[in-house]
Amino acid sequence: ARQGAPEAIVAEGKTPAEIRAIAQALLDAEASSVLVTRADAEARAALREVAPDAQEDERARLAWVARDVPEARGTVAIVSGGTSDLPVVREAQVRAELLGTNVVVHVDAGVAGLHRLEPALPDLKRADCVVVVAGWDAALASVVGGLVGAPVIAVPTSTGYGATFGGVSALLAMITSCAAGVAVVNIDDGFGAGTIAARIARQSA
Amino acid sequence: ARQGAPEAIVAEGKTPAEIRAIAQALLDAEASSVLVTRADAEARAALREVAPDAQEDERARLAWVARDVPEARGTVAIVSGGTSDLPVVREAQVRAELLGTNVVVHVDAGVAGLHRLEPALPDLKRADCVVVVAGWDAALASVVGGLVGAPVIAVPTSTGYGATFGGVSALLAMITSCAAGVAVVNIDDGFGAGTIAARIARQSA
Amino acid sequence: ARQGAPEAIVAEGKTPAEIRAIAQALLDAEASSVLVTRADAEARAALREVAPDAQEDERARLAWVARDVPEARGTVAIVSGGTSDLPVVREAQVRAELLGTNVVVHVDAGVAGLHRLEPALPDLKRADCVVVVAGWDAALASVVGGLVGAPVIAVPTSTGYGATFGGVSALLAMITSCAAGVAVVNIDDGFGAGTIAARIARQSA
Amino acid sequence: ARQGAPEAIVAEGKTPAEIRAIAQALLDAEASSVLVTRADAEARAALREVAPDAQEDERARLAWVARDVPEARGTVAIVSGGTSDLPVVREAQVRAELLGTNVVVHVDAGVAGLHRLEPALPDLKRADCVVVVAGWDAALASVVGGLVGAPVIAVPTSTGYGATFGGVSALLAMITSCAAGVAVVNIDDGFGAGTIAARIARQSA
Amino acid sequence: ARQGAPEAIVAEGKTPAEIRAIAQALLDAEASSVLVTRADAEARAALREVAPDAQEDERARLAWVARDVPEARGTVAIVSGGTSDLPVVREAQVRAELLGTNVVVHVDAGVAGLHRLEPALPDLKRADCVVVVAGWDAALASVVGGLVGAPVIAVPTSTGYGATFGGVSALLAMITSCAAGVAVVNIDDGFGAGTIAARIARQSA
Amino acid sequence: ARQGAPEAIVAEGKTPAEIRAIAQALLDAEASSVLVTRADAEARAALREVAPDAQEDERARLAWVARDVPEARGTVAIVSGGTSDLPVVREAQVRAELLGTNVVVHVDAGVAGLHRLEPALPDLKRADCVVVVAGWDAALASVVGGLVGAPVIAVPTSTGYGATFGGVSALLAMITSCAAGVAVVNIDDGFGAGTIAARIARQSA
Amino acid sequence: ARQGAPEAIVAEGKTPAEIRAIAQALLDAEASSVLVTRADAEARAALREVAPDAQEDERARLAWVARDVPEARGTVAIVSGGTSDLPVVREAQVRAELLGTNVVVHVDAGVAGLHRLEPALPDLKRADCVVVVAGWDAALASVVGGLVGAPVIAVPTSTGYGATFGGVSALLAMITSCAAGVAVVNIDDGFGAGTIAARIARQSA
Amino acid sequence: ARQGAPEAIVAEGKTPAEIRAIAQALLDAEASSVLVTRADAEARAALREVAPDAQEDERARLAWVARDVPEARGTVAIVSGGTSDLPVVREAQVRAELLGTNVVVHVDAGVAGLHRLEPALPDLKRADCVVVVAGWDAALASVVGGLVGAPVIAVPTSTGYGATFGGVSALLAMITSCAAGVAVVNIDDGFGAGTIAARIARQSA
Ligand SMILES: Nc1ncnc2c1ncn2[C@@H]1O[C@H](COP(=O)(O)O)[C@@H](O)[C@H]1O
Ligand SMILES: Nc1ncnc2c1ncn2[C@@H]1O[C@H](COP(=O)(O)O)[C@@H](O)[C@H]1O
Ligand SMILES: Nc1ncnc2c1ncn2[C@@H]1O[C@H](COP(=O)(O)O)[C@@H](O)[C@H]1O
Ligand SMILES: Nc1ncnc2c1ncn2[C@@H]1O[C@H](COP(=O)(O)O)[C@@H](O)[C@H]1O
Ligand SMILES: [Mg+2]
Ligand SMILES: [Mg+2]
Ligand SMILES: [Mg+2]
Ligand SMILES: [Mg+2]
Ligand SMILES: [Mg+2]
Ligand SMILES: [Mg+2]
Ligand SMILES: [Mg+2]
Ligand SMILES: [Mg+2]
Repeated sequence: ARQGAPEAIVAEGKTPAEIRAIAQALLDAEASSVLVTRADAEARAALREVAPDAQEDERARLAWVARDVPEARGTVAIVSGGTSDLPVVREAQVRAELLGTNVVVHVDAGVAGLHRLEPALPDLKRADCVVVVAGWDAALASVVGGLVGAPVIAVPTSTGYGATFGGVSALLAMITSCAAGVAVVNIDDGFGAGTIAARIARQSA
Repeated sequence: ARQGAPEAIVAEGKTPAEIRAIAQALLDAEASSVLVTRADAEARAALREVAPDAQEDERARLAWVARDVPEARGTVAIVSGGTSDLPVVREAQVRAELLGTNVVVHVDAGVAGLHRLEPALPDLKRADCVVVVAGWDAALASVVGGLVGAPVIAVPTSTGYGATFGGVSALLAMITSCAAGVAVVNIDDGFGAGTIAARIARQSA
Repeated sequence: ARQGAPEAIVAEGKTPAEIRAIAQALLDAEASSVLVTRADAEARAALREVAPDAQEDERARLAWVARDVPEARGTVAIVSGGTSDLPVVREAQVRAELLGTNVVVHVDAGVAGLHRLEPALPDLKRADCVVVVAGWDAALASVVGGLVGAPVIAVPTSTGYGATFGGVSALLAMITSCAAGVAVVNIDDGFGAGTIAARIARQSA
Repeated sequence: ARQGAPEAIVAEGKTPAEIRAIAQALLDAEASSVLVTRADAEARAALREVAPDAQEDERARLAWVARDVPEARGTVAIVSGGTSDLPVVREAQVRAELLGTNVVVHVDAGVAGLHRLEPALPDLKRADCVVVVAGWDAALASVVGGLVGAPVIAVPTSTGYGATFGGVSALLAMITSCAAGVAVVNIDDGFGAGTIAARIARQSA
Repeated sequence: ARQGAPEAIVAEGKTPAEIRAIAQALLDAEASSVLVTRADAEARAALREVAPDAQEDERARLAWVARDVPEARGTVAIVSGGTSDLPVVREAQVRAELLGTNVVVHVDAGVAGLHRLEPALPDLKRADCVVVVAGWDAALASVVGGLVGAPVIAVPTSTGYGATFGGVSALLAMITSCAAGVAVVNIDDGFGAGTIAARIARQSA
Repeated sequence: ARQGAPEAIVAEGKTPAEIRAIAQALLDAEASSVLVTRADAEARAALREVAPDAQEDERARLAWVARDVPEARGTVAIVSGGTSDLPVVREAQVRAELLGTNVVVHVDAGVAGLHRLEPALPDLKRADCVVVVAGWDAALASVVGGLVGAPVIAVPTSTGYGATFGGVSALLAMITSCAAGVAVVNIDDGFGAGTIAARIARQSA
Repeated sequence: ARQGAPEAIVAEGKTPAEIRAIAQALLDAEASSVLVTRADAEARAALREVAPDAQEDERARLAWVARDVPEARGTVAIVSGGTSDLPVVREAQVRAELLGTNVVVHVDAGVAGLHRLEPALPDLKRADCVVVVAGWDAALASVVGGLVGAPVIAVPTSTGYGATFGGVSALLAMITSCAAGVAVVNIDDGFGAGTIAARIARQSA
Repeated sequence: ARQGAPEAIVAEGKTPAEIRAIAQALLDAEASSVLVTRADAEARAALREVAPDAQEDERARLAWVARDVPEARGTVAIVSGGTSDLPVVREAQVRAELLGTNVVVHVDAGVAGLHRLEPALPDLKRADCVVVVAGWDAALASVVGGLVGAPVIAVPTSTGYGATFGGVSALLAMITSCAAGVAVVNIDDGFGAGTIAARIARQSA
């Protein structure tokens, strides 16, 4: 495992046989966990074949096996604008937990109704790192970025239609956010967000 | 004057002689006012030559002459995120006033500090139409759109650098805003915003 | 209901269970209506399960239930270039009607045959707000914008092939229209157009 | 002269010495005319040095010398939306005349005021080829294309600001125009439009 | 029929019932022909129901009925780079023939092997209008444009993968071609090319 | 000061008078420091007028005044590919130092010569947060991201020509980096990178 | 065979009958080999019908027949970042071998773990031409380009999601690589890479 | 010198002092030559200060000093479409010569007049590597690629206006060229083309 972090496998573009082989190799190398993302039923089954104790989340297209997850240190708060962003939220959550950190999740904090953000605020302010997951115009990132003092990792999602352009508009809004302290990962990249958020949270604890 | 609305002249790409000729023709046709936008010193001087009573705003690159402005009806509230957006704010304001409506302006309501929006709220909630002027990620449009019940006209500005792409990111964010009741005009188009906002406000009064 | 306006639910990306739950919550909160957009058969059935009196429009992928729709005030005229734009026209119409306004619809007013616009003109000139729905090069928006004095809300549609780029060319044409008094919503966003048009029409009546 | 048509020289990116040399070579080869486009004062002077009988148009950045222009055959009608498009109109006109055709020009036929197109209509309907020059959303192309039976050559111009993107929006609108019988040349390419229009007009006479 | 040209129907986005109704209306108005493009089996069947004498081309997704086609005048030559462009070639051919012109077709004149263009040259040089249909980098348009004296109509196609971007690269290459006398229609728009080419050819004969 | 972090002022688009006023207001509100970015000579002079103890960096277009900078905690390592990136490196450095953290800088670690990265490695591995500043194809971000275990903040720069598109290619490469643990800020946004890096470093110490 | 190189057939957009006809014509013309790319099962069967000795690779969507392959000269080394790039690697390999060169392949040399590149280095340094196949941010191209002295041909792949944009980000990174000696072919264009690499290798031997 | 190739210095974004320092360091390290590209008068003077024997080319914005250039091996042929491309041609030529290869140059082989390519053909067919430099639609690359058997390196240039988009259209055309054996470098990147071409030519000799 490079840098102490367990590898993950993007299932798209790989055959089940390849997924099995890579997962087996990681386990043989004593990876603390293995996470398969963008995994359809076949890909998830492939992991289970080499790791019968694997877990999965169908909607988030995830499969993973936890073998030697480090004790949780620090806290990551994940907040998103709606249930459509849930698969990305889950990917970030699973990844951060497998790296050994505590995760608290708040869904449906849409900006259009700012009051909906209120119940989440205490958790957001307490966290060592905040992950904002949002599609459409992703205004949630700027709003949260203006309210918390912790580092904010923003994940644009492909939620939306028309001029959302598969998450491009959200990406652009997040990367040009006037709120300081915000950095951005790839569209729908819950995995990337979970990784950097966990690193920040763990070393902050 | 088409549709009862006085014409305006975009100075860019026109010679002073052309500006003079068009302005004179509009005045001869008894336009209630003439507005020249994107006007450098020479273009503004051109208007003054045919209308010695013309006024101007150097920073907003505007010159205009009011001859028979209709009595003000209804109220437009204009709100923007920072002083860099002032030229666009002014263009919208002058246009709306020339069409015969009351205009109230709130600058520096940046979203990064949501509390900065509070002093403006009563005016925004009272207005017949709200114009939001914002560059960068334009999150202000979504926030205001979630707070008021009046129609919101959003104007993306070219304020910002890097991935703001001259206002494109702001335009995309505004047009994909989750807040309902928001419609968008061209980048830096204070004129267009002032026009539709005045129409809405006047017929609402 | 935020801002006095009933919420809507974008079905895409949501499970039937989530749609049921959100719809139920809105009804419990005494929403005057609930509208589900981008709804396939399953999503429409989900609404019917919690609201047996729900109506639907298959082609426009809509389901909605009207409970306490405000008395109609003001008039919105919707005009489109062809039958391919009908789903977006319908979404705008249903939304505007649920918000409590009168809607009159004219389809097939293609610009290529300007004479085809004539039958619609009296209605367009009478309306408190005009909604123009058009794909391809969306020239209809400029033509209508040059003929009416009311605020115009333009909806680009993804109708067309090749360099229409899923509605981008129509969006660009509408947002750069020389006709004053035109503002634009997202591609295929009948919902957004219906919302702001109804607000304008109601407060103008 | 390739294809019977005299060559032209794009001055941008060429030194005066190069322009002189190319022009001299064309004249030595008995070109019926030489046209220098995108020519600043220095470039225009370069042509005059080898052809003292050269003419020029400063605003359109043109210089040309007519030596053996064929007798005019057929008629090209050029129509544009405003005075800002004049340089492109002139480039098309000079090119078409040098190729030996009659040219009639109508400027300021903006779509926003359709009635402004009326004085031009008889000429447009009589022409063997119609050239439409327009910036912004270029709706003029669709409107003219819907009214005339002759082939229409559309020239998008870089007139406008914001989301006009230097003529891209006009190009997209023209190329996706619903009006049949319309074909498009490069942004600001009066030269290209003049060339194909003259070919069409001459062979139609 | 506007402008003397029979209408056509883009089937995509229309129901069979709508296609039947539009086709019937055109026939009732004594259209000289009716052409349905982008037509799947169902759409083609819809035309046959109202016009049992309709013909069709499955691969080109066309159905049409010829009732009163004008006597052929003038000649259009269509040349394309490969068999993948055949559907677009056919659409242009059928359209041009229905408008009353002679059409000669040369497929597989790929630029990569310039010698392959030779057999087509006599026909290209004889034609009143040349239509070039090409995908990928569309270099064929520049090559043909440099060889013939007639007006050239270029049709970019969506043939290709990777950075062809569905025909965008071909469109850009064609619109910036150094060869004079070339104008461009929409990506895959055989219909548009056939229309303007037939107009040019008929009036040149 | 929002979120405990001192505000900064983007000078572009602001008059010297406005910069003076904002700076004065921040100082009156006891900001621990004031930083003016994108500041030409006039803008830097404006800060000096209200804060005679201001420092500046001409090439990085920065002016700043430190009043009550918190004691340094944690370490940020900044690495860049070449001297052309220096202005952005400096902006990140000054910002991070003003927020109270130790900064170590390594310039000229171009990927083309990987060995050039070696002298920087010990510092990179020791840091609490690594900032990678790179233009062109920004491969440096992936290389560094693969070597260190700390959170990596990547800053794309507008260094380069041609298809670098003002930093867009670098931004895209950084945001799609295969290296986990990398998040990205706006093009040339040293300020944003310095802000989040300092937050991470301080809370990690 | 143009230029001594055997032709290839892109199957997409062609009917099986067309593939058979073209393949037969190539074989009749004594092509040294025939390669069909982007070939589904039907297209591969089409080749087998005219060439029973054809071979195929389902995952790489290839079918080919070798008849008179020149003796191998020179060596091409192909290196890629992961198993998802395998289809493109194979296309390059088969093409280069059919042109008569030796090919050595190294898969899974991801940049994120630079050490993974080490086993490949001796082969890369020995090769007459190196082909780098990479998706995502394609940093591998810059890294390899910085390590070898031979010409490097870079193939961006469409591997990845979000802001990889189907290979566009990889293409941009490769074309702006700071490493000298790198040139780029189309996205997923193993065929193009194999062709130029084989030419380089053969003439270098 | 990395990879045996002497380094080069992009002057843009560097101070004269930095250029002097880097050049001195390269010379101290016994670079066989030093080349400064994108060099204005000041940057060129900087090189002369540390290397009085430096040569320069003002129009191509180059300065270089040759100290120990390897004996020339192999031949590179450079061909371009017009004099506007000369600066890029020169950059490629100087770079290739400094790396130790013979260079032959043919300018003005525009595709629009294919016959203009003829005088260059013998040299192109003899060369070990052909470099094609072209702006506008860059059709020259496909034409040359279809005529020669050597590897072709294509350099898109920013020559042109309108939809040439600063060389993007040329880049897209070149990268999607149907001619096999073509690979592409960055827009205006004569340096990159000269580097890979010289490597190919030298190892082929
Ligand atoms: N067709 C539509 N287009 C745009 N916005 C919509 C549409 N339908 C619903 N909305 C709004 O978009 C937001 C999406 O929120 P959610 O349904 O929670 O994802 C809600 O505020 C809806 O009111
Ligand atoms: N304004 C213009 N726009 C487009 N093409 C032009 C223009 N003026 C001249 N041309 C053509 O563009 C080509 C440029 O060639 P050159 O002048 O050699 O760079 C020539 O074939 C000219 O005929
Ligand atoms: N170089 C910079 N890049 C990005 N944001 C900045 C920069 N400098 C300052 N900011 C922030 O951007 C916002 C711009 O607000 P204003 O200065 O009012 O236009 C403020 O919140 C600043 O803290
Ligand atoms: N005109 C040019 N285009 C592209 N790369 C260049 C050019 N001139 C030099 N280079 C290379 O680009 C890299 C830039 O590095 P630097 O000069 O340190 O910014 C060096 O590796 C140079 O060899
Ligand atoms: Mg930011
Ligand atoms: Mg909206
Ligand atoms: Mg407008
Ligand atoms: Mg068309
Ligand atoms: Mg052209
Ligand atoms: Mg990443
Ligand atoms: Mg390069
Ligand atoms: Mg190719």
